[in-house]
Amino acid sequence: MPDEPMHLVERPWEDLEELADRGDATSLEAYVDTLSPPDAARAMAHLDEDAQSRVLETLEPEAAADLLEDLPFAQAADLIENLDPTVAAAILRELPSDAQADLVTAMDDDDAEAVLAAMGPVEARGIRDLARYDDDVAGGLMVTEFLAFRDDRTVADVIDDLRRNADAYADYDVQYAYVAGAGGRLVGVLRLRDLLLARPGRPIRDLMIREPTTVRTDATLDELEDVFDTRAFVALPVVDPEGRLVGVIRRALVEEAVGERAESDYRKAQGIVGGEELRTMGLALRARRRLSWLSINIVLNLIAASVIAAFETTLSAVIALAFFLPIISDMSGCSGSQAVAVSIRELTLGVVRPQDLFFVWVKEIGVGVINGIVLGIIIGVIAMFWRGNGWLGLVVGVALAVNTMVAVSIGGLIPLVLKRFGLDPALASGPVLTTITDICGFFLVLGIATLLLSRLIGA
Amino acid sequence: MPDEPMHLVERPWEDLEELADRGDATSLEAYVDTLSPPDAARAMAHLDEDAQSRVLETLEPEAAADLLEDLPFAQAADLIENLDPTVAAAILRELPSDAQADLVTAMDDDDAEAVLAAMGPVEARGIRDLARYDDDVAGGLMVTEFLAFRDDRTVADVIDDLRRNADAYADYDVQYAYVAGAGGRLVGVLRLRDLLLARPGRPIRDLMIREPTTVRTDATLDELEDVFDTRAFVALPVVDPEGRLVGVIRRALVEEAVGERAESDYRKAQGIVGGEELRTMGLALRARRRLSWLSINIVLNLIAASVIAAFETTLSAVIALAFFLPIISDMSGCSGSQAVAVSIRELTLGVVRPQDLFFVWVKEIGVGVINGIVLGIIIGVIAMFWRGNGWLGLVVGVALAVNTMVAVSIGGLIPLVLKRFGLDPALASGPVLTTITDICGFFLVLGIATLLLSRLIGA
Repeated sequence: MPDEPMHLVERPWEDLEELADRGDATSLEAYVDTLSPPDAARAMAHLDEDAQSRVLETLEPEAAADLLEDLPFAQAADLIENLDPTVAAAILRELPSDAQADLVTAMDDDDAEAVLAAMGPVEARGIRDLARYDDDVAGGLMVTEFLAFRDDRTVADVIDDLRRNADAYADYDVQYAYVAGAGGRLVGVLRLRDLLLARPGRPIRDLMIREPTTVRTDATLDELEDVFDTRAFVALPVVDPEGRLVGVIRRALVEEAVGERAESDYRKAQGIVGGEELRTMGLALRARRRLSWLSINIVLNLIAASVIAAFETTLSAVIALAFFLPIISDMSGCSGSQAVAVSIRELTLGVVRPQDLFFVWVKEIGVGVINGIVLGIIIGVIAMFWRGNGWLGLVVGVALAVNTMVAVSIGGLIPLVLKRFGLDPALASGPVLTTITDICGFFLVLGIATLLLSRLIGA
Repeated sequence: MPDEPMHLVERPWEDLEELADRGDATSLEAYVDTLSPPDAARAMAHLDEDAQSRVLETLEPEAAADLLEDLPFAQAADLIENLDPTVAAAILRELPSDAQADLVTAMDDDDAEAVLAAMGPVEARGIRDLARYDDDVAGGLMVTEFLAFRDDRTVADVIDDLRRNADAYADYDVQYAYVAGAGGRLVGVLRLRDLLLARPGRPIRDLMIREPTTVRTDATLDELEDVFDTRAFVALPVVDPEGRLVGVIRRALVEEAVGERAESDYRKAQGIVGGEELRTMGLALRARRRLSWLSINIVLNLIAASVIAAFETTLSAVIALAFFLPIISDMSGCSGSQAVAVSIRELTLGVVRPQDLFFVWVKEIGVGVINGIVLGIIIGVIAMFWRGNGWLGLVVGVALAVNTMVAVSIGGLIPLVLKRFGLDPALASGPVLTTITDICGFFLVLGIATLLLSRLIGA
């Protein structure tokens, strides 16, 4: 960008590699500290995997953990898997509990076991407990760093504890402490702010908010979004089926997960299976993953194009039609994609549900009729003047108009239908849409042309 | 979904409309309270605009404001614009400052002025001040509800103020109070938690964190993401050029804005200009907006397809080629889209910058060579056996292989180039990509076929 500051380090990865090769932990840490998180991530992305590992191994574990947190998750996971298990365990120990669990889950089983074996048994068990949960449920998003006190403690007890452990709690970043009753069950939530206003001798059970809102460990991201949308909670306690507090989930973590899901949906719609690819990943893996998507598409394309083969006689007689086939295919894909995007959006917002098929269709077909007629007239007029044959214009125009109506209908409904059958609308909508609209579009152009063949000869 | 609870209200919009028509504010509010935010949004989306307005007008302003907050922003903005200015002003007054400013900004100037005139002059000025900022900078994302105290106040003064205004502060949801020195300049941040540990008579300036991290009102979303990524802040103070505190920005607001940007990018890539469409919007507006995108695409498509027209003789001689043109077009589009998605992802993460063209190209061309060869062999073998002509297989296979390499190169680089020129990669990458890959693909198939025409006749 032209307005970038002049003092920008242009090739920080060269400095990074040099300091790592020298094995100078202090200088390397000082250098990394001068980089913003994106600069650090960019510098690491430009190094090969061995050099990235050397950087992490050279740094002290705490500094390495900070650097790891600056990297995109997939890159961090690849990297820590390649480290010596002892080094990896030392770095993991410096990360928050949710990041530990996410990284361990992303590792191969053998690598994960080796790293956990290199940690203490208590730490390893904590990580294993968290790693059991899926990424996109409360259990997988929560952190296990929280303040909890028994309900018979007094205000003075709590303040004393906060004072003594101020350093340990500095990273907790919570405004609440949780209150446990018999059997460790969560019985209340204490706003730390309320401690300010209370007499020191009062038991905290008198101050706490009773029957607090909680979420289950298996609450989905949609459910979490809902709860946080309904009320202005900053954080909520996560409880197990017995009602015991097992973690805390913060609003920002939920918002972040929702944002990541949106980004992942976008990439899936563009043909990145799994929703994640970074260019730091190995070439073979990247090529294979992309190819898995492309090879499904080429089969679907061949099926759709077989409609063209079936009308070979018509096409030979009116070669001008070959010019319009890719246009009909692409334009219908565009019209349908717009409807797909709006449906995926409305499903995410909860404004439509999978059963709202008729509601969505009514809203889409209106757009389809208007845009179909406009686009049909444009292409029809162009076809007519190009070849001086009004019938050609009619064929191509009617085909595009009708296919636009088909495309918006299919595009609007497909995400709802896929969702109803438990499939991922972001991933599957595109290929299903274009296959149907291609088949339908080719059939319309060539079918109508066959009916009117005598009028078209010579066009 | 098959596992939906039986007690679900299937058509809540009918009840909503009936209660609004009866004008029964209490029953209507009680009914709305039974709906989850997505259910409320869905119910409103099923009503026409007049009925939605009647619901809002019937509810007390506070209940109407709560309902408005459950709706997607674009829907809320459309709705409030259609209300009587006095009613709209009463509802606006119940919303947090950032929502007020966003809604007023979204209104037509005349409507906005009418609503602001119906509010008090002080309130109106506060909203006007906020509405000056863009949506995606700190000034546009911040809230103006925060706690601030002069630096000569004592711990006891602050605790006393918190106690007296507990109700008013209940919605603030902050863990910090801000400390102002001479001329209202921000001189420190006070963690409310630290008040717990301090003697009542101490001035807060002794407890506050000095030289706190601040952000400017014009800090961009990327800059904000960076700051919150670097440190575990829950909220940060926003200051004007004179260093005066003007608002507070919370991590969750930044995460939310980042998520919305990702969703908006996804929709733009799918051809929703402006990134936002809901089916509650008017038909004419929706059709027109979508058409603006489609009409650019049809022109680009015609340009690309004109390559086909230029090779009409070849195509007439080898009609089988017409079968492969849409396949080459679609497959190259798919390969290119994958590269676009990865580049947009890496640009967002900051892992690549617009100047990293060569780095990205090297990473992409490897994938392009592998996938191009695999896809080329698949399509080539199919073409060969279909027509029993090895030369046809060679033409089609080489064309797809080479065009896949072109597509991943262009797909990887386009977002960087567009970003460098200040254009929106999410919006423009798709059409630019498919136009270039179509032109190139059609030219490769038909160009090579023309060179080898004598070998292809009869295929």
